[in-house]
Parts: sequence; C-alpha cells; structure tokens
Amino acid sequence: MSLLPTLTQARASLTREVQVVNEKGEQSIMQIPAERDLTVYVDKRELVTLMTLGAQPELLVLGFLLNQRLVDSASQIESITIDWEVNSAAVKTHTGIDKIEERTVKKVVTTGCGQGSVFGGLMDEIENIKLPAAQLTQTQLYGITEAIRQQESTYKSAGSVHGCALFKGTQMLMFVEDVGRHNAIDTLAGWMAMQGISTLQQPDPSEPYVFYTTGRLTSEMVIKSAQMGIAIVVSRSGITQMGYDIAQQLGLCAIGRAVNKHFVGYTGLTRLQLQA
Amino acid sequence: MSLLPTLTQARASLTREVQVVNEKGEQSIMQIPAERDLTVYVDKRELVTLMTLGAQPELLVLGFLLNQRLVDSASQIESITIDWEVNSAAVKTHTGIDKIEERTVKKVVTTGCGQGSVFGGLMDEIENIKLPAAQLTQTQLYGITEAIRQQESTYKSAGSVHGCALFKGTQMLMFVEDVGRHNAIDTLAGWMAMQGISTLQQPDPSEPYVFYTTGRLTSEMVIKSAQMGIAIVVSRSGITQMGYDIAQQLGLCAIGRAVNKHFVGYTGLTRLQLQA
Repeated sequence: MSLLPTLTQARASLTREVQVVNEKGEQSIMQIPAERDLTVYVDKRELVTLMTLGAQPELLVLGFLLNQRLVDSASQIESITIDWEVNSAAVKTHTGIDKIEERTVKKVVTTGCGQGSVFGGLMDEIENIKLPAAQLTQTQLYGITEAIRQQESTYKSAGSVHGCALFKGTQMLMFVEDVGRHNAIDTLAGWMAMQGISTLQQPDPSEPYVFYTTGRLTSEMVIKSAQMGIAIVVSRSGITQMGYDIAQQLGLCAIGRAVNKHFVGYTGLTRLQLQA
Repeated sequence: MSLLPTLTQARASLTREVQVVNEKGEQSIMQIPAERDLTVYVDKRELVTLMTLGAQPELLVLGFLLNQRLVDSASQIESITIDWEVNSAAVKTHTGIDKIEERTVKKVVTTGCGQGSVFGGLMDEIENIKLPAAQLTQTQLYGITEAIRQQESTYKSAGSVHGCALFKGTQMLMFVEDVGRHNAIDTLAGWMAMQGISTLQQPDPSEPYVFYTTGRLTSEMVIKSAQMGIAIVVSRSGITQMGYDIAQQLGLCAIGRAVNKHFVGYTGLTRLQLQA
C-alpha cells in the first residue's frame, strides 16, 4: 500500500462583505467571493501561481499536479503545506519530478475559468483514454440536479464562483467551488486521489461516477473529465465545439443546460437512458 | 507617424449545428460556438497556444502581446498572419522582442475564462497606473446596457461565449465575443491599437471610455482594464475580492450586475453620477 501525502488544513475566509450602492442610490452590504493568489513550489522550485477562492487549497494543488500529469499518483508526494501568510504552497516530493522543466515549458492558454493553463500534452493523451461502462437514467439525472439545487454554497451567498461535484449515481460524494471551474475540477481530482477512488473500479455501471459543473463544457473540461475516467458529465451551461468533438470522439456522455427537469443531451447518448 | 502591422483577414465559422435531444426525448438542431486552438509564433519561435472562438484572431494576437507587455506598441510588429489550415498565428516583429524567453517564463494561472494565463509582472504595474478623469451618469449607464441588449451576437444564437465592448459614452465603438472573456478584452486592446485610440487622450471626461463585459470582474479583468487606461468597467456579472481590492486601490469605477436598469456599484463611485 502506498502512502498518501501529508496535507495541511489551511483555511481562509471564502467571502467578504463590501458596501455597495444600487440603481436607487440605496447603500447596502453585499458578500463577494474571495480570490487569492497561491504560488506553488515543487521541491522549492517555483512552478506556477494559481488564482483561487481558497476553499481546499491542498486538494487543489494535488489535483493540479495530477491533472497536469506532473505526478502519476498522490503517493509520489510527501507533503503539501499551504501558508496563507505568504500565499504559498510548498510541495515536497519523495524523489523529485522527472524532467519538470521540460514538461512545464509548453503553455496552452485555455478557455477555462479559473485555471486556464494546461502545460501541453493533454490532447495527445486522448487517444489512449478508454472510458468505463456507465449508464445514467433520466431519473438519476434529475436526482443530481435536485441535489445541486439543495446544496448550500458560496455561489448562493456571494455569486461569481463556479461549482463542481462528483456523484456516484445520485449520491453527491464531493462538492467544491472556486473562482474558476478548472480549479474546482482539479480539487475534485485531488480529493479522489486522497480517497483512493479509482473510476476504473466500477462494479456497477448503473451507479456511475458523474461529474457535474456549473461551467461550460469546453475542451479542457471534457479532457479533464476523461482523464479522471469519468464517462458522464453534466453542466448547467452549454458546450463548445471542441468540447463536443472530443466528447464525441471519446464516447463521453455530455449533457448541458441541466437545471431542474430540463437538459440537452449532446454526445454519448447511448449512456443516457431516457424515460419519457 | 509609426506604421501599423499588416494583418491578414482570416475568418472562420463561429458556430456549428449539432443534433441534440431534450428531456422529452425530442431531437432538434442546436448551434454551439466554435472553439479552436491558435498557436502563436513570434519570429518563428512558439510562444503560446490560445483557445479561441476565432472571431478576430489577428486583433486577439496583437492585443495579447500588448496586454502581456511583450510589445509596447503595435508599431513594433511588422505583420500577423493567421492560417486556420494549421491553426497558427505567425507574428513578425521589426527588431525582435527583447528578453522574450525571460519574460514568458513566469506563469500565473488566473481565474480567467478564455485566456487565463498572464506571464507575470502585471501586478507590479498597478502602482504606476494613473487613470484618466472620467465621469459616467446613470442615464449613460442605461444607454450602455440597452446597446448591449440590442447587439446581435453569437451568444444569442449559440450561448457559451463571453462578450466585451468598448464604449465612448453611450456609443459602442467595438463589440467582440470569445469563448473566454480574456480573449475578448485582448481583442479590444488589439482593435484600439490598430485604431490609434489612446484612452489618455480624453478631451471630454463626460464622454468617458467604458469597458463592458458579460464576465466577472476578477483581478485579471480589472488589471487589464486599468492597463488599457479605462477608468470605468461595467459587468453583467459580479466581482471577486481581488478585483474589488485592485479597483478600489486604483480608483477605478467597477459596476456589476448591470442588466437593463439594474446595477450594483462597487468601487470608484465618485465617477458614477446617480440620478434618482
């Protein structure tokens, strides 16, 4: 059994109250979401600065390293230490990251809210991805949108953040918000790694892992879902052409505009069982 | 007088029709926005890959280089040649970009939809920014939201894109959409450079330049507006804490939730003349 990294439990306020004025000239107090810079150092070498809400910074950093394929598994990391005094994340690996300079040199500036940058090579991986068997019924889909509707959130109190959730069937396993949807999905990946959840071990395809996001299904979001082995993605928003093309190529089920009992099925619809 | 760069006029389809199914099992045709990769080469050296709708790729690349402070003015660039056959933007400069390797090494992954990556140093600039005199009346603000309401757009036909516009008073000078709001604002910056518009030359502060965006006012959007010398920003969405703090520090007027005759004034409210 491989050891998991030691994580700090750094917490910071997710919202702040500010005084605003409206169109009638009325002053009031409104909450706005936090946004903070977090500079990631890997074995004391500066890697990147992430702009984040700061809800789960350790899991964000872990998921970022995993989703960027800078580490293959959480067990390669000894510890992640967040210090909000200096807005730093110190990552200590067991044996270093091979060729880190080379692998972080290629910059792709994506459409993504909140993360936006992938260090290349993600597109290359697509052809090797084989998604697991997974079937979702329309009733299960409504269970997911209902669970999201009931979820307490920074979005409800302050707006201007994206939410992501991992479901197994209609059970919400994890919910996370960030100023960008890409940070949110990376945080989910970090959480899954810490829980030892492998999407490839799905004994029951009728209780599938489902990735929910409030954000658009751009190429990056679809690729990340596929990398995480999640065959069904549900969004409150729409899809872009590249997100659509990649989902179709992978046979990934992409569902958009999912609010209450409305939705639009885009791709991979053999995985969605309609119940008229 | 300095020469402006020669730009190609590459155009590509901004939407595509796909077949979808809804909650009633009804099939229909829906438009989705394009999303394409555009790899930027500066003097034959690969710089970055942008994910874009592709509406105005030449202006996007020009604005990106300007907003990243990789060039000081458009006149440093001889030509920008877009080739959608190979999804490349070839930038030819007159005398090269000084220390380009060094200046592109620092990665900041922002909260931004659509661009997301700034190559560091933007925050350092803030202290040196002095915004011009600019005053907006509530009536002018309503003129802006009304102009946006009437604007034909990819968003209206296909959703899932962000729009940005540059106004002078209530006159819309330029409107652009992209899959990310950051590409949209960079495209505006490119357009302003080609038009020779300097926000510092504002003979009449009562007809101010105003930057409108459908996206959230994150730190990056506020910084870019300020860099472009625009003292008033209006968003259909909200603001993040860092966006708020920077706007306040700069005395930049930040207005959010601006739809029809509703809005919330966050910062720099001496620039907004309320008319109850």
